[in-house]
Amino acid sequence: MLEFIRSDLAQVTSYSVHPADSSTDSSTDSSTDGLIAPIDRLDANENPYDLPKELKEKLAWMWQQTIASNRYPDAGYLDLKRAIAAYVTDTSKTCFSTANISVGNGSDELIRSLLIATCLNGEGSILVATPTFSMYGILAQTLGIPVVTVTRSLDTYEMDLPATQTALTQTQHPPIRVIFVVHPNSPTGNALTEAEISWLKTVPQHVLVVIDEAYFEFSRTTLAHQLPQYSNWVVLRTFSKAFRLAAHRVGYAIANPELITTLEKVRLPYNLPSFTIAAAQVALANRPALLTIVDRLLKERHHLIEELSKHQDLHLFKSDANFIHLRLQNSSNAELKYETIYRSLKQQGTLIRYTGGGLRVTVGTPEENQRTIHHLKHALAKVV
Amino acid sequence: MLEFIRSDLAQVTSYSVHPADSSTDSSTDSSTDGLIAPIDRLDANENPYDLPKELKEKLAWMWQQTIASNRYPDAGYLDLKRAIAAYVTDTSKTCFSTANISVGNGSDELIRSLLIATCLNGEGSILVATPTFSMYGILAQTLGIPVVTVTRSLDTYEMDLPATQTALTQTQHPPIRVIFVVHPNSPTGNALTEAEISWLKTVPQHVLVVIDEAYFEFSRTTLAHQLPQYSNWVVLRTFSKAFRLAAHRVGYAIANPELITTLEKVRLPYNLPSFTIAAAQVALANRPALLTIVDRLLKERHHLIEELSKHQDLHLFKSDANFIHLRLQNSSNAELKYETIYRSLKQQGTLIRYTGGGLRVTVGTPEENQRTIHHLKHALAKVV
Repeated sequence: MLEFIRSDLAQVTSYSVHPADSSTDSSTDSSTDGLIAPIDRLDANENPYDLPKELKEKLAWMWQQTIASNRYPDAGYLDLKRAIAAYVTDTSKTCFSTANISVGNGSDELIRSLLIATCLNGEGSILVATPTFSMYGILAQTLGIPVVTVTRSLDTYEMDLPATQTALTQTQHPPIRVIFVVHPNSPTGNALTEAEISWLKTVPQHVLVVIDEAYFEFSRTTLAHQLPQYSNWVVLRTFSKAFRLAAHRVGYAIANPELITTLEKVRLPYNLPSFTIAAAQVALANRPALLTIVDRLLKERHHLIEELSKHQDLHLFKSDANFIHLRLQNSSNAELKYETIYRSLKQQGTLIRYTGGGLRVTVGTPEENQRTIHHLKHALAKVV
Repeated sequence: MLEFIRSDLAQVTSYSVHPADSSTDSSTDSSTDGLIAPIDRLDANENPYDLPKELKEKLAWMWQQTIASNRYPDAGYLDLKRAIAAYVTDTSKTCFSTANISVGNGSDELIRSLLIATCLNGEGSILVATPTFSMYGILAQTLGIPVVTVTRSLDTYEMDLPATQTALTQTQHPPIRVIFVVHPNSPTGNALTEAEISWLKTVPQHVLVVIDEAYFEFSRTTLAHQLPQYSNWVVLRTFSKAFRLAAHRVGYAIANPELITTLEKVRLPYNLPSFTIAAAQVALANRPALLTIVDRLLKERHHLIEELSKHQDLHLFKSDANFIHLRLQNSSNAELKYETIYRSLKQQGTLIRYTGGGLRVTVGTPEENQRTIHHLKHALAKVV
């Protein structure tokens, strides 16, 4: 043990790209792993479609003609922030300017910046309702920030609001300083309910509410229009899902200017590469064309849920995102069964996630989804 | 004041891209600022040359043909780490493997990760000898980590070793956990001396020594070969300078596997975009061609120092990096004079840095350097 490393870090485990499968390294080259081609990557809630050829060509041209590889990025990001503010204004029917926007190396960096700005050095704990996106807890732990967890209803995945309120009121040394919610939640797909939103409105001013809208373009529901009323709320979004830019790592925060100023102070000065900035701007400028895919994916989601619901051993959930969550009807020996299903699917060429007490399957192309239905039937035969 | 923000953050100022000039925003569009074209950007120690056309074409092709924009990057970075390990092995004559390498969103992210891994939550302070790279102190402050500073000789910019030893021994609550040195130092250009290196070897095991070799390809001197002997040392490098990839944000750490494992645990899981990974790999694969430029820049540095040394009012320093540091011989009213020179240069189209008690000028193209010499003469006439 190196003596200069914080002793509490030893207990922290890294975010694993394929947590259910300890034999997999993080390489995407699965050819040696006994997999049958094609590999359907339905484990990371990515959009199954790359950018259209003409946009890739346009970005290739921009890279060759307008981006100086040897120069640091334009770290003010004003043009990008302007385009994001216009997009948020348009989709929330509420006026936002560049002063309301900060950008990050994925939402991950923004989550970390929010944790740094609020909870460090014993000043605060965070509150999450599990199952939820694991990154909040992981990033908090790497910073030595305590994580308080409450549960969700196993029927609806709604937060247990009385328990949440109690945790908020009673946690001390250090008190809760931030609450993280995903809207809709991952891995369970449910958007915040009216009751949950009403409760969030009662959260006191000294507690930050982070509303992660990573799947906004699929849920088509946002709380951004509430931001002018709630100065302790911040909305996070990403270009990694509907906008098809997971490779480029860009997320953004929408909040009041004072919180944005703090985020700008905490972020790394040149956190977005020039090519990433260009990709995000091109994506926003071509938004109508890019987002037509969303309708198609929502139809596919409907089809996937409908087909899988026919299987009597599966319990499907309503989804407001680009993935579905499902559980086995019979929960005896569930962990072993889920792992068997996960491995069988992988062997057949379909990568999904076993997480949060069930399976999370990204909605893919029609061909991928057909294979998911087929492979899942085959896998289920092994456990029921 | 938002009640959930750490109170000590209010005192922290952001890293400013143009700190001497508060009227400048961070936009690179200087056309409205009374500047005469061409703008010579000699303020960020960038390589003045973009990648050769054929490498930009190659990367454009890779982007169109092999990078899926909709997919998260391959977060193991094994191929990139392998190429970096081979480069470090080759240039240090010491064997390194992927287990010795971690990569970051610029060295900035690695600096932050090292701070997080060691000093957070009251466990440690850091020690820097000023003037030096300001980012260590800024990132520490954003994390609430105390910064202890010692001084350097104004003649040689060597660290005041007795004072450094005293600070290391006597600092408590919290004790020094990390020492940051740049080799060669920025903004002063001097490589570590034998005396400084000998002192670093005496730093006890419970204190991490970070040796930032951002300018290694210009100094051609490294301490990487010492890493097997000193498990509390880590060397940082970057692709932003000699390799011409400042736009892409990629740095790396070289250290023992245990420290690397900790850095991997702390870093954001997808910290490098796919295009950035490709750019770094292409740069390393084309290293001989790319680094031929270094000889030319070193000759230009010699020429620049020689020419400017002719001016009796200037004191020039030896440089081991791709920039030069200079001071006025007469230090009365120095601050006002430096600001006048800085502004006059800017007005003439030459951007430099006024920092660390002197001026820092990046070595540019022969044409840029000729203009620097000419513009500086003109600016000096205003103050001496």
